[in-house]
Amino acid sequence: MKPFQQLACRKALAGLTPRIALPQNVAANRLSQRSFSASARAFQAAGLDASKLTVTKTSTPKELTAPQDLVFGKTFTGGDFASIVHRIVVLTRLTDHMLSVEWTATDGWHAPRIIPYQNLSLDPSTCVFHYAFECFEGMKAYKDKNGGIRLFRPDKNMQRLNKSSSRIALPTVDGEALTKLIGDFVKTDSRFIPDARGYSLYLRPTMIGTQKTLGVGPPGSALLFVIASPVGPYYPTGFKAISLEATDYAVRAWPGGVGDKKLGANYAPCILPQLEAASRGFQQNLWLFGEEEYVTEVGTMNLFIALKNKETGQKELITAPLDGTILEGVTRDSVLSLARERLVPKGWAVSERKIRMSDVAEAAEEGRMIEVFGAGTAAIVSPVRNISYSGKLVDCGLKENEEAGEIALQMKNWIEGIQYGDEEHAWSYVI
Amino acid sequence: MKPFQQLACRKALAGLTPRIALPQNVAANRLSQRSFSASARAFQAAGLDASKLTVTKTSTPKELTAPQDLVFGKTFTGGDFASIVHRIVVLTRLTDHMLSVEWTATDGWHAPRIIPYQNLSLDPSTCVFHYAFECFEGMKAYKDKNGGIRLFRPDKNMQRLNKSSSRIALPTVDGEALTKLIGDFVKTDSRFIPDARGYSLYLRPTMIGTQKTLGVGPPGSALLFVIASPVGPYYPTGFKAISLEATDYAVRAWPGGVGDKKLGANYAPCILPQLEAASRGFQQNLWLFGEEEYVTEVGTMNLFIALKNKETGQKELITAPLDGTILEGVTRDSVLSLARERLVPKGWAVSERKIRMSDVAEAAEEGRMIEVFGAGTAAIVSPVRNISYSGKLVDCGLKENEEAGEIALQMKNWIEGIQYGDEEHAWSYVI
Repeated sequence: MKPFQQLACRKALAGLTPRIALPQNVAANRLSQRSFSASARAFQAAGLDASKLTVTKTSTPKELTAPQDLVFGKTFTGGDFASIVHRIVVLTRLTDHMLSVEWTATDGWHAPRIIPYQNLSLDPSTCVFHYAFECFEGMKAYKDKNGGIRLFRPDKNMQRLNKSSSRIALPTVDGEALTKLIGDFVKTDSRFIPDARGYSLYLRPTMIGTQKTLGVGPPGSALLFVIASPVGPYYPTGFKAISLEATDYAVRAWPGGVGDKKLGANYAPCILPQLEAASRGFQQNLWLFGEEEYVTEVGTMNLFIALKNKETGQKELITAPLDGTILEGVTRDSVLSLARERLVPKGWAVSERKIRMSDVAEAAEEGRMIEVFGAGTAAIVSPVRNISYSGKLVDCGLKENEEAGEIALQMKNWIEGIQYGDEEHAWSYVI
Repeated sequence: MKPFQQLACRKALAGLTPRIALPQNVAANRLSQRSFSASARAFQAAGLDASKLTVTKTSTPKELTAPQDLVFGKTFTGGDFASIVHRIVVLTRLTDHMLSVEWTATDGWHAPRIIPYQNLSLDPSTCVFHYAFECFEGMKAYKDKNGGIRLFRPDKNMQRLNKSSSRIALPTVDGEALTKLIGDFVKTDSRFIPDARGYSLYLRPTMIGTQKTLGVGPPGSALLFVIASPVGPYYPTGFKAISLEATDYAVRAWPGGVGDKKLGANYAPCILPQLEAASRGFQQNLWLFGEEEYVTEVGTMNLFIALKNKETGQKELITAPLDGTILEGVTRDSVLSLARERLVPKGWAVSERKIRMSDVAEAAEEGRMIEVFGAGTAAIVSPVRNISYSGKLVDCGLKENEEAGEIALQMKNWIEGIQYGDEEHAWSYVI
């Protein structure tokens, strides 16, 4: 993979065809030659070389947290601000080490290092603090029944990381080399992976721009690091269906924007609508888009809606299409694939299509709603009881004593079975 | 000013009226009581207290840079990637000290400190690295002819900083207290302000979320810091008109989004279109919006268009309205105010209104174009020679041997006169 930013930049904008006219005073030939020579230099910059890994072990290993204290994400209980802050603090217990790889525009990727978990020391003018040169991934490592350690579809995370980084002029990275390095890192800290179903090691690959500058431009240096935190089951005592508030007063993403990339930039602006929803007792907000109020995403998850199609009466599992406003969730893709493989033969239709919130409400009113669930790395699936929309509560089809629908349950079992290696599957990557 | 996040959050979303329905199972009264008690606690958190400032001087003062090496922003010379990187490295020479103020949700703003310029040491899980909890301001300090030091409209920067921070669940700050502290900081490092017209000390107030967490939620802690860099004139040898490329394949901002706030999140995604434009010899890209291709902003500046109105024949100075997609530039506001005060009596119309790029092109074709310029803190005004749009170059009215139009020149002189205290004006803040 070519490590040079400029090429990645071009790739990131490929398919977009600006209509160009050169200014009168520009010697276009000379410029294109200069561009070309810059690109030619770039080929000499180094790609990520996993064989150059060095490992420095910590001299102060941490105590392990008892599994019962590793509750992933207790459902919000309402608008108590302090309790929300407390909750997120409790979430993060990092392991002993971190994977760290520096990049410079002149030399490409430096030798990767596993080092004791430690603070980053950065000049206050570093561009990550000012212009949000940052992107990340969320993935997990699981212990299987034989004590082996597995990742879930790491190739998807690597693809997305490169889409994200190149969109903000950060370097791309060889996904296979990084996956191997992440495997080495996970093995180094494997004692932190609880050996029980529902538990895992959450992995956070992160790339930040480290150029010291107040000028707004492409970073000449970057840092890729991976940190890890043991996590427990999202629903330790079984599913608990959530309530959503449809957000019609703020917009998360738009066509031609960057809402489909896993950039830091997409997250901070989402907190306020989330807090607004929480203050009224809703666990997450649901982002609508446009005058049509298309259903897009839930807080930090993709959304699936199962209903009986109004025209055909067929059972249909629907999620929003990848039109640039939707994060390309790995769990989303997994749910779609499994649904096509295992639900379509049972008579289901599976659709990536736009659906209006008013159509969802209509399906509920007409008794055509089957179930609704969020999909993401943290919970796999997150069943939805109802959605506050336009002054009403849209019932999402669960019975009063039910906390999850059949499809959500089945998806969780299928995906977890693959993640923990009960079912041998190409998606499971043994390290 | 109330320092507590939740209140600021509410304020940031005030006027937006979500249509709410409470979920069936929620005891709304209990929740609102809990919210209320959280807010009540918050009132005890401390506001920013400038009188608590402590100053620790550096033991290793830096050498001053010769004024001729403080060129602010040499015009891009084209698509040479390496030269762009080099340029932005050269830009930033920081002073001896920095202003630093910590904030926690429980205690509010801590005592402000002026300390030797130093790295920030942050845990890799700090939320600023993952979710772009960051916002900033750009302002300058000037030496006047009597050796006094002046800021330019700092109240506007403080207002905008609070709008930005509260939109991403970071705390707000007492603008007057912070302005006083910035004054103290500037005085501490006043030897870095070159004593010559066109030179100044660029100031960068920055606020970042410092909560250690991988959970996505409101930061429970933050750091406000101000750093400073001496800068020379943007055009050291006189104006040099720039060429723009209209970007119709990527979208910077959207109604209901955060494009009107000075968030880090708005900057990283803008680099690629900028590089694309630069690779074809254009100095900046011009953001269009929507099917109508409304003219919005230029790279990191607001845009002004002076033309003869098609209907009335009157001379009209136009800039895009503050509809949520435009940054509320301090220079933009200053140009508008001065134009209303000093150009309207001479027969000009001054309009904050939407204008299509096709209307700009039409004005050029019909000989109604007077001039076009960008407006921002770095250059004050930046005259535009032409705009690449839809396969053509739209001529912006400058004669071949002209580098600036009359209005741009006049605005620069008026604003600079106020900034350097030649003209006594309420906008000039003596520290």
